[in-house]
Order: sequence, then C-alpha cells, then structure tokens
Amino acid sequence: MSERYMEQLGRQAAAAKTAVANADTAKKNRVLTRLKEILEAETASILAANAADLQAAATNGMAVAMQDRLRLTEERIRAMGAGLLQVSRLPDPTATTFPPVQLAGSLQCERKIVPFGVIAMIYEARPNVTIDATALGLKAGNAMILRGGSEALATNRALVACVQRALREEGLPETAVQLVERTERSLVGELLRMRRYVDLVIPRGGAGLIRFVVENSTVPVIETGSGICHIYVDAAADLQKAAAIIMNAKTQRPSVCNAVETLLVQESLLPWLATEVAELTAAGVEVRGDAQVCAAAPQAVPATEEDWRTEYNDLILSVRSVPDLAAALRHIETYGTRHSECIITEDPAAQERFLRDVDAAAVYVNASTRFTDGFEFGLGAEIGISTQKLHARGPMGLEALVTYKYCLRGNGEVRGE
Amino acid sequence: MSERYMEQLGRQAAAAKTAVANADTAKKNRVLTRLKEILEAETASILAANAADLQAAATNGMAVAMQDRLRLTEERIRAMGAGLLQVSRLPDPTATTFPPVQLAGSLQCERKIVPFGVIAMIYEARPNVTIDATALGLKAGNAMILRGGSEALATNRALVACVQRALREEGLPETAVQLVERTERSLVGELLRMRRYVDLVIPRGGAGLIRFVVENSTVPVIETGSGICHIYVDAAADLQKAAAIIMNAKTQRPSVCNAVETLLVQESLLPWLATEVAELTAAGVEVRGDAQVCAAAPQAVPATEEDWRTEYNDLILSVRSVPDLAAALRHIETYGTRHSECIITEDPAAQERFLRDVDAAAVYVNASTRFTDGFEFGLGAEIGISTQKLHARGPMGLEALVTYKYCLRGNGEVRGE
Repeated sequence: MSERYMEQLGRQAAAAKTAVANADTAKKNRVLTRLKEILEAETASILAANAADLQAAATNGMAVAMQDRLRLTEERIRAMGAGLLQVSRLPDPTATTFPPVQLAGSLQCERKIVPFGVIAMIYEARPNVTIDATALGLKAGNAMILRGGSEALATNRALVACVQRALREEGLPETAVQLVERTERSLVGELLRMRRYVDLVIPRGGAGLIRFVVENSTVPVIETGSGICHIYVDAAADLQKAAAIIMNAKTQRPSVCNAVETLLVQESLLPWLATEVAELTAAGVEVRGDAQVCAAAPQAVPATEEDWRTEYNDLILSVRSVPDLAAALRHIETYGTRHSECIITEDPAAQERFLRDVDAAAVYVNASTRFTDGFEFGLGAEIGISTQKLHARGPMGLEALVTYKYCLRGNGEVRGE
Repeated sequence: MSERYMEQLGRQAAAAKTAVANADTAKKNRVLTRLKEILEAETASILAANAADLQAAATNGMAVAMQDRLRLTEERIRAMGAGLLQVSRLPDPTATTFPPVQLAGSLQCERKIVPFGVIAMIYEARPNVTIDATALGLKAGNAMILRGGSEALATNRALVACVQRALREEGLPETAVQLVERTERSLVGELLRMRRYVDLVIPRGGAGLIRFVVENSTVPVIETGSGICHIYVDAAADLQKAAAIIMNAKTQRPSVCNAVETLLVQESLLPWLATEVAELTAAGVEVRGDAQVCAAAPQAVPATEEDWRTEYNDLILSVRSVPDLAAALRHIETYGTRHSECIITEDPAAQERFLRDVDAAAVYVNASTRFTDGFEFGLGAEIGISTQKLHARGPMGLEALVTYKYCLRGNGEVRGE
C-alpha cells in the first residue's frame, strides 16, 4: 500500500516534468508571482493550519527553538512572497547557450543546459523551505517532490495547495509540485530508491537527517548544511580582528551551519585567549577547552574528544591550543565537515598555505565564516549549502538545479574506425 | 583484518593527496611522460604478468571476448604510452582562474578549480583502464585508489609498480596511486563507505558492477557506461540514412555502450523494415521483433519484455513498431538508460521535439549513436561516459575530475543582520 503511494507520486512527477521543463521563462515567472499573490490572499488559512501544527508541537513537547522555526507569521509569509519575487527576477539558468561544435562531417554538437527533471527535497519542520525549494526548483524547470517534517504537515498542505493553484492557473500540471502527505519513515526510504522517477535528492536539516539520506539513497544526493566550522588564530594574527570575527561567527546567529564551532589557537596566544574567553563567557557563550586552554582561561570547562566532532548550533564553543599551522590543518582535516574554515593571520605565507591546503567549500582569511550564504555570495537565492564536492559546492542557487545534455544534429554521419 | 587493510589504503591516499594537488602542471606532466618510458622499458615483465593472468583466465573458462579485453600486447602497451602523452598535452583543468568578486567591505571571493582529492575507480578486467584512470586522475591533481577486476591482478600489479616508480622518481608519494591487491568482494563494500578518505567513486563496467556500487556506496558516485541506446525511424525518415546509421550503430563495435540495442520504427515503415531486417541478418545480427515486426520480417524472432530492458553488447537488435513519435518517446523514457538516443527524420518539428524531450546525455538527429565518446567530442581523453545528471553527463574528461572551492580574503569583515 505505502509502496503504491510513493510510486504514484513518482509517476505523477515524472509525467509532469516535461511540461515544466518546456515552460518558457515568462510562464515560470508568472507561476512565482501568482503564488506570491495567492499566499498573501490565503494568509489567514495558512496561519490557521500553522496554528494547528504549533499546538500539536507544544503538546508533544517540541523544543522552543524548533517551535520558532515552525512558526509562521504574517511577516514571514510576506517574506516568502518577497523571496518568490526575487527568484522570478533572477536569470533563467536554462537560458544559457553555448555555440555548437562541429564534429565529423557536418555533425553539430551543442551543449544545452537543461533541468534535472524531478528533484526530491527532504527537510525538517521549516515551512519556509517548502516555498524556497518550490521557487528555485520550478524556476530551474524541475518538478518537485517535497517531504517536510511531519510536525509541519498541516502548514505544508496549506502552502502546497497554494502552489498547486498557481500552477493550475498558469496551465501547468499541479503534480509538478507534490507534497508527501503520509508521514511513515519507510516512505522516505522508498523515495530515496525511486531511481526510475527521481533524478536528484537534496536533504536539508540536521546531521541525523543528512546521514539517513546518504546511507539509504540510491538516487544521487547533494548533501547540505552540516557545518563544524573552525577559526584558527595564528601567532601572527591581528588580535583585534580575531576578537571581532570570533564573536561574530559564534554569536550573531549560533543556530546556523556557518557559525563557528571550534576555535584553534596557536599556543603562544594563550595569555590573550584568557581575555577572549572572558569576553565570550560574558556574551553568554559556554567555552569548552583542552587542558592548556582550561589552565589559561578560568571560565573554560574541559572539552572531550566528542566536542571536536559536535556541531553545537548553540552558544557553545570548543577551543583547542595547537603548536602550529600544520597541527591546525590536521585538526580541520580530521574533524571538519568541509563547510567553512577560517585563519586569522597577517602572515601572507600562512594565509596562502591555509587557502591552498584546507579542503572546504569556503576558506577564509581574516573574515567571519558567517558569510557563506547564497545571498552574500551573490546567487540571489539559496536552496542549501553543499558540503560535498560533486556538482555543487558551497551555497547552491539556481545553477545547482540544472544539468546539461548534448544535442547532435547530423546528416547521416556514421563512425569510422 | 580486512578493515584495517582498506583503512590503511584510504589513510595513505588521503595523506598523499595534498602533494598531488600541489604539484605544478610541469611535474604532473613529467610523471606521465616518465611513466610512458617506464611502461616501454618494462614491456617484457608486464607481458609476463599478463600471460599469467591470461592463463588463469583460460583455465577458469573466461569468455573469449573477456580474455581479449584482458590481453595486453606490445602494441597495446604502446597505445597506453600514446594515451599518456596525449593527456600530458591537455590543458591542466586546475589552471582555470576566475576573477575575484567583491563582497562586503573589502572581502574578496574567488572561485578556484581544485582536484576532488581521492578518487576510487572500480572496474573490470581491462588493464588499460588502470593506466587511463591514472593518467586522468593525476593530471587533474587527484590521488587514486584502483580496484580492477581480480582476473587482471598480476597485470595491474605490474602496471601500478611502473606508476609508483614514476611518482617516486618525480618526488611524489607513491601512495598517490594505489592498487587494491586483495580481491575479497567485502573490501569493495568497505571502500564504498570510506567517506572520511574517499571523495568520489567512479565505477566502470557492466550493469551488475554499476548497480552494486550505486546500491552500496555512501561516497558520492558517478555512474558510467550503461547504455540501452535507441534509434527511432520516423515516418519522414530518409531511409538511406536510416539504413547506414542503423548498420553502423549496431555492427561497427557491438560490445560498447554507445552501440544501439533497440530500433523503434514508425509502423508505416514496416514494408521497408523487411528489407532492413534482411540486411541486418545478412550482416550477422540477430533481430528480435514484436508481433508486427515478426509478421513483416521473416528473419525476425519474437522479442519478450525482457529484450527492451537488455543491453546486449552483442550482434543482437530488438525492434519494435510504434504508432508515432509520442509512443517512441514513451518507450525511450521507460526503457532507456539516459545514454545516447537517436531519431532519423527529415521533419524539423519531429527533430526539435526529440532533441527537446528526450532525457539523455546525448540526443542525436540523423547520426550514429557511436559518436558518444570523449575523443569524438573533443575532450582529448575519457575516463567513462556518465549516465547520471549530477556533476558530469556524457563523456567525461579531465573537467569531470575536478571540483571548486571559494577562497575569501578579508580584512576583519564580520556579518551584519
């Protein structure tokens, strides 16, 4: 029974994908702007659905921070609309053309940018992802299957009803964007193995969700968002810059993936570190240090091996002293998640070595890791931050949601030996 | 015990990757040209190792076609050397640069092309892949872990010994290219889950191998080489072109992935098809047809559902009659492997619809599917033909073996709200 449900969603998405792929830019943009109007007109019913989700979440003891992510307000719905408008104004990634190349005889080979086809998005109880993923997926010409957190089901139903109305009004199949409305975990497993219908899976959420998808998917995956980010303060650091960058990277928005989780400090800076830890503690940050750090900074509590492997997403910072840049590089190679890494130093050789040898999506010299973001990088939008190296790395905008094919026009050419 | 073996290979590859990534283009090219010389000097010992593999293969009843793929000759070793020289002359993909973009304040963001890191190649008993993969992997700056078919183990040992000598002589760690010398299948499973050390897996071989890798890998995969390719002969076809293209695509080299496996014929052409089937049969092709095809062409034998799903890699062709282009598109969508698909027609509308709606790496109008190849497409080399859409599609050369990262140079910038 459950197999037939997912099979049906997959078949319907595959049947709808050609219509979306062949819709011209103007039509895709009209769907997005129409959706903005519908979301605004339906604000009351969306908020009512969201209130039901929130009530159930409170009853079930959902953490307050998670309830906040689940909560919609008039303002947040307006922000969704603004995002739709913004995506509608971005260039259509499938409009890029390349000049054809002449192969054998008069055989012309042209590389064309095309949508993936069907993209499945698997995420947690954050209803804004429903609209963000829809906007980017449709603009790039893809059909979407959305599987949001079950705690947001009523909200997502209300949002996807608006999406499907916008599709219908513009003459596109409403099955171009479908919500998985059944919440059995086994259905996610099925979705991850529907290679016949699904071209790409993008998980977005915590480490557990990402791991589940990576370990169970036979559909190609782009991993996103797991961020154990480091800042290494080198002996040649400008310590004023260091203090400002560390404070910003840890406290400006601790719940996000580009916040710093571990500070590595060259050991000659331990006296300075004492002041720094005091300031962080005063700002509400719990500092967990190795033995040298704890000896230097009375506010620090002892860190364990587990701390180096933990993405806190909270006002907690682990701090380790290292003898030199090479040791910092080894720590980052061992514990990092290839997201965003930073060195603070005025030494050009150390800067260049760090930029060259750190294997991560974004490598920083003397700036906050918080800049790793699609908007900051000028992509105009973001569907997630890839921490893998295949296809897309770092912040992913529309370009990450298309692929290419070769179109060959011949006149009877055959291949010789 | 086996876990420690693979773990060791992985750790060694990861430790070697920085040296390869940081080797300049001239040094990488010297490794390739030196390897050419060493292969030529060691021809006798390589052929002796290959003779041992061949003798065991014959004793174990390996099919003659597979023995031919396993066999090395002086000429084939010279061809490997020529390939090395060719790759040494290709542009270094990591040398591409992009102008930096200014973000907040004086924060400069530069996108840099970088190697993947460690690439694992899993393939069958074709020793030429050992050298091809080494050449492309190293030129792109990657460390390689090679797992060739166990029937070619002695040959691969001899070849990788040459590779490691070339690396050593040029001052690079010999662990930059390692052969999995133990043949337990469970070791492949371990390799596919070594996400800490391996950045990318490329399987190359038959459908069974590819399926095993896709179903068991948690490391990102680029699938290659599964090719159920179709030719659709439209009512408006030039039948002379059709005959030449079909004969070439089926018989010029039937064992390869870009050979045609299924012919779809618009049903008004059944009278013509009778002649065509006679010609194919005369050329040694077994034709398996649906009921209409068998009624029209006496040489055809009945096809079953299984035939539409089979990549023969042999002188066998399945033939199906279809009422129209839409039915041909549906058949290709259902049974194709997204490799290479062809329409033969003089009707511009049918040409454009086929090019637009067929979801495959290479879509042809009036030319043989046999052109889907890295050399034909001008890549200068080929590590495989991708049938997935993530990262690389169709023939993969050096560009498929690199990724990118963002390097950000700041002066104390922090992010505001």
